[in-house]
Amino acid sequence: MKFTLKQVADFVGGNVEGDLEATVSSLGKIEEATTTDLTFLANTAYEEYIYTTKAIAVMVSQGFKPKKKITTNLIRVENPYFSFTQILEKYQQMTSMSKVGVESPSFISPSVTLGEDTYIGAFVYIADQCKIAKDVKIYPNSYIGDNCEIGEGTIIHAGVKIYPNTSIGKHCVIHAGAVIGSDGFGFAPNQDGIYKAIPQIGKTIIEDHVSIGANTTIDRATMGATIIKEGAKLDNLIQIAHNVVIGKNTVMAAQVGIAGSTKIGDDCQFGGQSAVAGHLTVANKTTLGGKAATISPIIEPNQFLVGQPAQSKEAMTSDLINIKRIPKIQKQIKELKEKIVHLMNDPAKK
Amino acid sequence: MKFTLKQVADFVGGNVEGDLEATVSSLGKIEEATTTDLTFLANTAYEEYIYTTKAIAVMVSQGFKPKKKITTNLIRVENPYFSFTQILEKYQQMTSMSKVGVESPSFISPSVTLGEDTYIGAFVYIADQCKIAKDVKIYPNSYIGDNCEIGEGTIIHAGVKIYPNTSIGKHCVIHAGAVIGSDGFGFAPNQDGIYKAIPQIGKTIIEDHVSIGANTTIDRATMGATIIKEGAKLDNLIQIAHNVVIGKNTVMAAQVGIAGSTKIGDDCQFGGQSAVAGHLTVANKTTLGGKAATISPIIEPNQFLVGQPAQSKEAMTSDLINIKRIPKIQKQIKELKEKIVHLMNDPAKK
Amino acid sequence: MKFTLKQVADFVGGNVEGDLEATVSSLGKIEEATTTDLTFLANTAYEEYIYTTKAIAVMVSQGFKPKKKITTNLIRVENPYFSFTQILEKYQQMTSMSKVGVESPSFISPSVTLGEDTYIGAFVYIADQCKIAKDVKIYPNSYIGDNCEIGEGTIIHAGVKIYPNTSIGKHCVIHAGAVIGSDGFGFAPNQDGIYKAIPQIGKTIIEDHVSIGANTTIDRATMGATIIKEGAKLDNLIQIAHNVVIGKNTVMAAQVGIAGSTKIGDDCQFGGQSAVAGHLTVANKTTLGGKAATISPIIEPNQFLVGQPAQSKEAMTSDLINIKRIPKIQKQIKELKEKIVHLMNDPAKK
Repeated sequence: MKFTLKQVADFVGGNVEGDLEATVSSLGKIEEATTTDLTFLANTAYEEYIYTTKAIAVMVSQGFKPKKKITTNLIRVENPYFSFTQILEKYQQMTSMSKVGVESPSFISPSVTLGEDTYIGAFVYIADQCKIAKDVKIYPNSYIGDNCEIGEGTIIHAGVKIYPNTSIGKHCVIHAGAVIGSDGFGFAPNQDGIYKAIPQIGKTIIEDHVSIGANTTIDRATMGATIIKEGAKLDNLIQIAHNVVIGKNTVMAAQVGIAGSTKIGDDCQFGGQSAVAGHLTVANKTTLGGKAATISPIIEPNQFLVGQPAQSKEAMTSDLINIKRIPKIQKQIKELKEKIVHLMNDPAKK
Repeated sequence: MKFTLKQVADFVGGNVEGDLEATVSSLGKIEEATTTDLTFLANTAYEEYIYTTKAIAVMVSQGFKPKKKITTNLIRVENPYFSFTQILEKYQQMTSMSKVGVESPSFISPSVTLGEDTYIGAFVYIADQCKIAKDVKIYPNSYIGDNCEIGEGTIIHAGVKIYPNTSIGKHCVIHAGAVIGSDGFGFAPNQDGIYKAIPQIGKTIIEDHVSIGANTTIDRATMGATIIKEGAKLDNLIQIAHNVVIGKNTVMAAQVGIAGSTKIGDDCQFGGQSAVAGHLTVANKTTLGGKAATISPIIEPNQFLVGQPAQSKEAMTSDLINIKRIPKIQKQIKELKEKIVHLMNDPAKK
Repeated sequence: MKFTLKQVADFVGGNVEGDLEATVSSLGKIEEATTTDLTFLANTAYEEYIYTTKAIAVMVSQGFKPKKKITTNLIRVENPYFSFTQILEKYQQMTSMSKVGVESPSFISPSVTLGEDTYIGAFVYIADQCKIAKDVKIYPNSYIGDNCEIGEGTIIHAGVKIYPNTSIGKHCVIHAGAVIGSDGFGFAPNQDGIYKAIPQIGKTIIEDHVSIGANTTIDRATMGATIIKEGAKLDNLIQIAHNVVIGKNTVMAAQVGIAGSTKIGDDCQFGGQSAVAGHLTVANKTTLGGKAATISPIIEPNQFLVGQPAQSKEAMTSDLINIKRIPKIQKQIKELKEKIVHLMNDPAKK
């Protein structure tokens, strides 16, 4: 796909300074752009790059005044970042696959209902009684167990495994290799220390507009439901245990682990590899730093917590500084001791 | 599936107080139950819920005396928790799929031996010389490499990948997306700092009654065998490196990592995201807290260790308290200094 | 496969002391070897084992003189470790599958180009415009999206998922369940705190001689490319976020996480579960210990850093020792206080 600078400028309501007929075929960052890329300059910290960029064209604001000679073409717009985002979305729409139809071979139980404009890739398995709504795209090699529901417009990428009785909402994206609805890790030891599996008869509910990353695992509930609420975004390789609830619009970076029966509030942000122990409640708008971990509930909302065990950033910074002060403290004590010895031996006192 | 309260009571040897013909179709917790659920009351801490539960029926002990009006039906039994567990297991048996047969298309080498009552899902690949015992269930999209053995009654969930020469015992459960027998991470640098793979010719042995979680990875040995012993239970997203041995009835929560050639004892319990470095031995009945890590062997059995590096809970608690005391220590030193200065300047001494 | 000791000795240019016609069929460590194994003795620390090993034969140096009676056969060579490695490589070559051809059913778009001597396993999906070079082996149940290139001699193990527009170099090994090219974790909140996905239009480049572990995930770039450079080796369950660059011959153990846009240098070594925050640069030859984490750039090359936040091993060791000194410090302060009180009350001063 190629577009002339004129076509691009018309699409975003801007105007070209330079070669109207020059063509762009891709998008890039101003510092990395190649000769077929369109890019943009919004943050003046990046201005230096506009004098050296290889991009065929740069979107700039109406008021931008170059301080040096420019060799690239310019497209002037009101708000370069906003206009570039528009182009980015258009580009993604045009390049994203909007496949429709059922590829062969696939395995779809006769009791499955398939909505309009669905895509079922080859080697997809859809078991009994599943309901697949319209515009759902299921990429190759995915498995959907019995009695699942998948809502309108949801995308299931390649090799996803969904256990029976899972409900997935509308406009979700489930990335490759994710596993949803696996058995909760529940074992009860008998008197000989041998573990027996506790039956896991609950289910998993993924609400609308949820994103689940590659190879993330979400266990179903022992009884009741594990729930990922509307708008939550989970990155790759995350573990969500049985009976967990993740609140609305909560965002978790990669490799986070949430233990069984814990309830995470709305609008939380969890850094990579952070963790929460089981049977806890975490308040709304909690931010956990990378690798932070808590074994206590977080009651007060809107805190930023770091470290293990998680505490405020100020408390953590103090701790780190204070530990480094110990050698000085030891030196001070030694000096005090010497002075006291000196005082005790002071001839004036004798 | 629906059952009358009479049928349920007969099954557990109890008796109904209320509507014998009311029907239950699912099971739930007393605080979350819906109008089609059977639930139970065993722990008096939950008694309040019996007066408000939506459940159609609650199993209670013979001696239970309500303190308020009850609107739900009761099923009186000796031991409500035990009876509920019986129902739970029955429910799981009835709802779990006990599929039998070979779905099409699947790829089964002619040299494979398949026992009676096995289930081979569509898109399953079973390579040369594999021996699949009776009652084994292999769900769709799984891959079994050459020369593997899978013991009686083992369940392989969807999308599991098993490398050649792996031996899996009886009555194991391998969850979706797990990888067993991948190359150990062994590379030797040459004089230019370029790494060359060390041949990995060992194998992986999973003994009987082992459970392996979703997307967990277990590498095969460089030589010899990586071994997961009888009754061990591994949760999701765990990494077991080459030549590791996991002892009998050891239980590991999600995202644990065990580095190469480490031997973990029997009856250990590892919290989520805990880790053990390579070439170590960990004694029987060791408990590692969540995120704990050790780079030293653990010689004495039956310890509970937390933190990084792992130490006793008491030692860790002391450390955390002591760090917080540093500001007070600094204040005390300042006061002592002032007193000493005062003493040194004391006119009495002059 | 069986070989006589004479055949083995001839292959490595050694000579047999014992039964020339005895046969070996596998390889093992001297302390674990079984009666069909060949093993070796290179490190004198293991000498005790040669008097008790069950191995049918042991490779030893020309100068080795037993101190006790030996019951196994010997193969004398210049350098037992080197010779054993030769046998190991030969063994791996002979036992590794060198499959060729396209198994059925598989799904290969008509626009795909397949080189000579490729292997495409059953249930493999290769989408439009992919270029698969000669000697590439793609094991069953793998998915390759549109417009990917895979270089000569690369092995894709079972159940790998590769998103569109990914480029993989020559002689790479991608282990089972790995996901390459998934969406970067990019979401921008609107004024209501609802997150909207930022289009991810970049790609992923895996250069030559790269190894990627089982169930590892590598996200594609937002714009531009996520790059794993030549010779890098990534273990299992690692997370590489969007726009990350991993330098040449860098080695990462399992469960490492690298956040978005971070650039890791050449020849680095990362321990298991270590992590680097986003938008940072890490210098060449940096070694990060297991579980170490940095939220600051690492400017100076060739450092060995441990802990959270990462610091030198010496600094970390000091901290750990110093924390343990706090109780003693408190005791010393108490003693000083008492002495000062004593001094202040000293009748000599009155």
